[in-house]
Amino acid sequence: MTLSAADRREIDDLRADRTLTRRATVPALEEILYEPLPVLDHGFIRVIDYMGDDRAVVQAARVSYGRGTRRVSEDAALIRYLMRHRHSSPFEMCEIKLHVKLPIFVARQWIRHRTANVNEYSARYSILDREFYLPEPDMLAGQSTVNRQGRGEALPTAAAAEVRDRLRATAEAAFDAYDELLVPLAPAPEPTGDGPETDPVGLARELARITLPLSTYTQWYWKIDLHNLFHFLSLRADRHAQYEIRAYAERLLEIIERWVPLCAAAFRDYRRSGVTLSAGGLEVVRRLIAGEPVTAETSGLGRREWRELMAALGRQP
Amino acid sequence: MTLSAADRREIDDLRADRTLTRRATVPALEEILYEPLPVLDHGFIRVIDYMGDDRAVVQAARVSYGRGTRRVSEDAALIRYLMRHRHSSPFEMCEIKLHVKLPIFVARQWIRHRTANVNEYSARYSILDREFYLPEPDMLAGQSTVNRQGRGEALPTAAAAEVRDRLRATAEAAFDAYDELLVPLAPAPEPTGDGPETDPVGLARELARITLPLSTYTQWYWKIDLHNLFHFLSLRADRHAQYEIRAYAERLLEIIERWVPLCAAAFRDYRRSGVTLSAGGLEVVRRLIAGEPVTAETSGLGRREWRELMAALGRQP
Amino acid sequence: MTLSAADRREIDDLRADRTLTRRATVPALEEILYEPLPVLDHGFIRVIDYMGDDRAVVQAARVSYGRGTRRVSEDAALIRYLMRHRHSSPFEMCEIKLHVKLPIFVARQWIRHRTANVNEYSARYSILDREFYLPEPDMLAGQSTVNRQGRGEALPTAAAAEVRDRLRATAEAAFDAYDELLVPLAPAPEPTGDGPETDPVGLARELARITLPLSTYTQWYWKIDLHNLFHFLSLRADRHAQYEIRAYAERLLEIIERWVPLCAAAFRDYRRSGVTLSAGGLEVVRRLIAGEPVTAETSGLGRREWRELMAALGRQP
Amino acid sequence: MTLSAADRREIDDLRADRTLTRRATVPALEEILYEPLPVLDHGFIRVIDYMGDDRAVVQAARVSYGRGTRRVSEDAALIRYLMRHRHSSPFEMCEIKLHVKLPIFVARQWIRHRTANVNEYSARYSILDREFYLPEPDMLAGQSTVNRQGRGEALPTAAAAEVRDRLRATAEAAFDAYDELLVPLAPAPEPTGDGPETDPVGLARELARITLPLSTYTQWYWKIDLHNLFHFLSLRADRHAQYEIRAYAERLLEIIERWVPLCAAAFRDYRRSGVTLSAGGLEVVRRLIAGEPVTAETSGLGRREWRELMAALGRQP
Repeated sequence: MTLSAADRREIDDLRADRTLTRRATVPALEEILYEPLPVLDHGFIRVIDYMGDDRAVVQAARVSYGRGTRRVSEDAALIRYLMRHRHSSPFEMCEIKLHVKLPIFVARQWIRHRTANVNEYSARYSILDREFYLPEPDMLAGQSTVNRQGRGEALPTAAAAEVRDRLRATAEAAFDAYDELLVPLAPAPEPTGDGPETDPVGLARELARITLPLSTYTQWYWKIDLHNLFHFLSLRADRHAQYEIRAYAERLLEIIERWVPLCAAAFRDYRRSGVTLSAGGLEVVRRLIAGEPVTAETSGLGRREWRELMAALGRQP
Repeated sequence: MTLSAADRREIDDLRADRTLTRRATVPALEEILYEPLPVLDHGFIRVIDYMGDDRAVVQAARVSYGRGTRRVSEDAALIRYLMRHRHSSPFEMCEIKLHVKLPIFVARQWIRHRTANVNEYSARYSILDREFYLPEPDMLAGQSTVNRQGRGEALPTAAAAEVRDRLRATAEAAFDAYDELLVPLAPAPEPTGDGPETDPVGLARELARITLPLSTYTQWYWKIDLHNLFHFLSLRADRHAQYEIRAYAERLLEIIERWVPLCAAAFRDYRRSGVTLSAGGLEVVRRLIAGEPVTAETSGLGRREWRELMAALGRQP
Repeated sequence: MTLSAADRREIDDLRADRTLTRRATVPALEEILYEPLPVLDHGFIRVIDYMGDDRAVVQAARVSYGRGTRRVSEDAALIRYLMRHRHSSPFEMCEIKLHVKLPIFVARQWIRHRTANVNEYSARYSILDREFYLPEPDMLAGQSTVNRQGRGEALPTAAAAEVRDRLRATAEAAFDAYDELLVPLAPAPEPTGDGPETDPVGLARELARITLPLSTYTQWYWKIDLHNLFHFLSLRADRHAQYEIRAYAERLLEIIERWVPLCAAAFRDYRRSGVTLSAGGLEVVRRLIAGEPVTAETSGLGRREWRELMAALGRQP
Repeated sequence: MTLSAADRREIDDLRADRTLTRRATVPALEEILYEPLPVLDHGFIRVIDYMGDDRAVVQAARVSYGRGTRRVSEDAALIRYLMRHRHSSPFEMCEIKLHVKLPIFVARQWIRHRTANVNEYSARYSILDREFYLPEPDMLAGQSTVNRQGRGEALPTAAAAEVRDRLRATAEAAFDAYDELLVPLAPAPEPTGDGPETDPVGLARELARITLPLSTYTQWYWKIDLHNLFHFLSLRADRHAQYEIRAYAERLLEIIERWVPLCAAAFRDYRRSGVTLSAGGLEVVRRLIAGEPVTAETSGLGRREWRELMAALGRQP
């Protein structure tokens, strides 16, 4: 990730500026405020603003006048209770605003989460920089043979290099076309006398951009509450998610650890590392605890669910 | 509005506490942070937290690295442009969190705005204070005779006094019943030996509360972004809204003036004091400008729309 | 639940009317269309309209041109997979519209689910019928002694009768006040000659209603998609929900069984009868399966979570 | 737009199938159900399902047992009143589900409307057809010189042909790369004996697709209520919207005319052909009606707002 000198200066100016506030403030998050945290080859996440902290969750759950309890252990217990019972509204009382730079194909997955606010950089209005995502060689993998949706084994070194060359060349050619289409294609029309003179113009930006690849980087401001961010992460930090969006999700998890450590710990225990058992899965667990041997055939579960359950229990399927 | 000494102390403690932050900070709003601003007889609005300021709207609209332009006049022009063309997403980048105390019948209108976060005080869990809304005498009005939905002329003084007495007496009687239902109704059951002794209990709170009137005060934490707050205000600060929710909306307008004065001014000009003309209404305006006489009959408008248009133009219908 | 003759006739007219459609149609749901299904003493749920069926979920998941697969077993397997992995968007492709009559305190819990559309009967515009919820004697219970939020043991018969009388009397008194406030309180003002004569009016409806109890029945049209309905049910058909809203949730479950039986079965297995284990809970299960004795003390879980886990596994805590 | 024989057959099968229903049914919409209505060069909109009609809006506004009034003129008047006063909830009681094929850059604008449900064809799971959008020559325009966001004059014929060739060649090259990347790049690994034999695989689909252009066609199921559809159309059928999404919006308007003609007429009058005046704009209108000459300078409006107002009034700026 590279930053222009002007952008760097703007960020430094923002970081240098401090004022007094009565609001809930989180020093660990203030440390990284405005700073671009790199993701993938050209992407980043910047925390632009935040509202609330761990205590704000407690305060909202209690609808209290002050900050709620003073003891961290009580706050933690309440937060864990709320997370376990999916009482989501107190977590909605914290909010975070991010500036994200990301490839368009990642942006398309990301935007599926509708309960967030977004302002995207307009390629109708502005010209895009020549920046596209090129996967690292060890991230180039073949189609999965067990899961129709996903990647399997990494490609052999030579094949990976070849693929990278091909991806790069196609993207460069698309950007070449983009740049040339934006250049005036015809001499300016003759001034007619009854209107203002017009300069020759290139193809409209909103049209030129359609030739760019899905790997092109875009940017947006994105704002979301903590409950919906947890929901986003439970799907996008999951191993079924595409690696590229997962890379952003991992960064977000780090940010959350700084911001609301008690909530982040509860999320880790109950949502990320937790597992949901169906009625049938629960019955299998009960039989196993009772010492009864259970097999895929006698479990009453579908093959796929059986495999998933054995994996969760750390057993051979 | 009265505040317990404990609540007052909690608020003072919060207000005394200041820390340094790198975030956008609004001194005029910090001044009133946490302070209950009275509404109606027992209600209030307290600003608990906020995110962003006028410049944050500009910054999001530009997806910029820094704070956007430095000149207030440019920011104002952009904000007016966004408001005029209903580009709502940059306004969504500001967020405010409030603690509100309000009668339940107002809460029921308020909650219809779904794009907000809310945590309400639970009357299943806690016992409600004996606080209900009793309208001021000059707010007691008869059913409107021109508008099926709304109030008309204020009642004569004597009638108003009578109505107030009746409203008060009914509410007091309901709270008497509530208090008594919560008191243990039967002696504790005999200890049986095989379980813990049980204290006698009153009726479950979740049941006792159903006897309380719609004028009872409740409380909630409520969080909303600026765009949706403007939408709320365009409906609830409107003269068609019931007076009691309008009283809250007026307070919210004052809060917005402190928080985001440029956005508030644009809202006032384009939304609050603006007017929307239909195709037919626009045609009437064109004819009037051309000096043509237009009457209700020749306008092509429905009677009601004609009256509304004449009112907007400051003319006799 | 009683229905006026006029309402009954309107419903019969609707039911008598059948037309041909190319849309997905569900005979088992058509059977009960428009018919009020009773809930509590005066409430009901009526199915007014619906969109989609089990196959519509499959069709959307596949983004297909036709109805998707023809074999029910394949559809069922896909639906179970979607439910298990919380792929919610295909379930959002089914929609249902209901007419519900319910006490206001239930309506206040219900409306917390924001991802639905609602049109409520307006007590600003119309006068409410004298209908309020009075719990059956065996539903009158004391405050729970183990759970601060909920009811415990049913009251003894005599106490229950006393409570019912008290609830009824308070509600009747409130409705008496309501009725009288709506009656003109003063003689009509003398005609002044320069305006229309005005009839004497009662207190504005929007004010008179504030004296009514939270047990008063209201009505609304409510429309929601199947995914969000499942979410509603996972919270409101749960044993932690207040009995009165649970009564509506149970009716909704019956409706769903008729409408989308495959989705309903998947919901039952994975969400209603399923259980979510935390990282710590999963570790306890693994140890139990390995034959290791685990106690509350050695489990590493909080007391409350331990109790909940043992209950789920059908063991003594 | 071309359709495979199999897809055509699936559609014909759906259309041939009719059943009886008690639901509100709209013959004019049934006529085109499932049929692809072409948009742009390869896109389409298909109506898959719908809920409600004009009377359903009235019925919800009245929270009635039956179908509401019987006279069309009363229904029309109520619908116009609701539209004029932005009472949006009754319009939310109608819902429509569409199957749409559209270029990805259009999909990215479209998805910004969050209050809808969507299921998109997955390019992680499936291989995309070689279909991309190529603008008609007369739609190829230069960058606007008055509006930074939009297109201006159409390009001269020769330049347009050149641009089209360039766009086509770049897209074809990207699809060539895509196709080749999906082909197995290396021989299958030697069977090891302790696992299943693996076939050689090409690059994972989720990676290969990143090389495709933004003009590539995608497909989705999209479901939205009538109020939010009107909001979508007020932005996307507007002359400021990019031509390509406007082409879809125009088709949607035709669909709405068939489905809910009274609502569509009210939308046309109050929203599409209507105009919103600011406080300042209203003052200018009043002065013009009073016969006072007003110029840009004496109007008190910004230059841009003045120009927009004069255009709305059909006057020279």
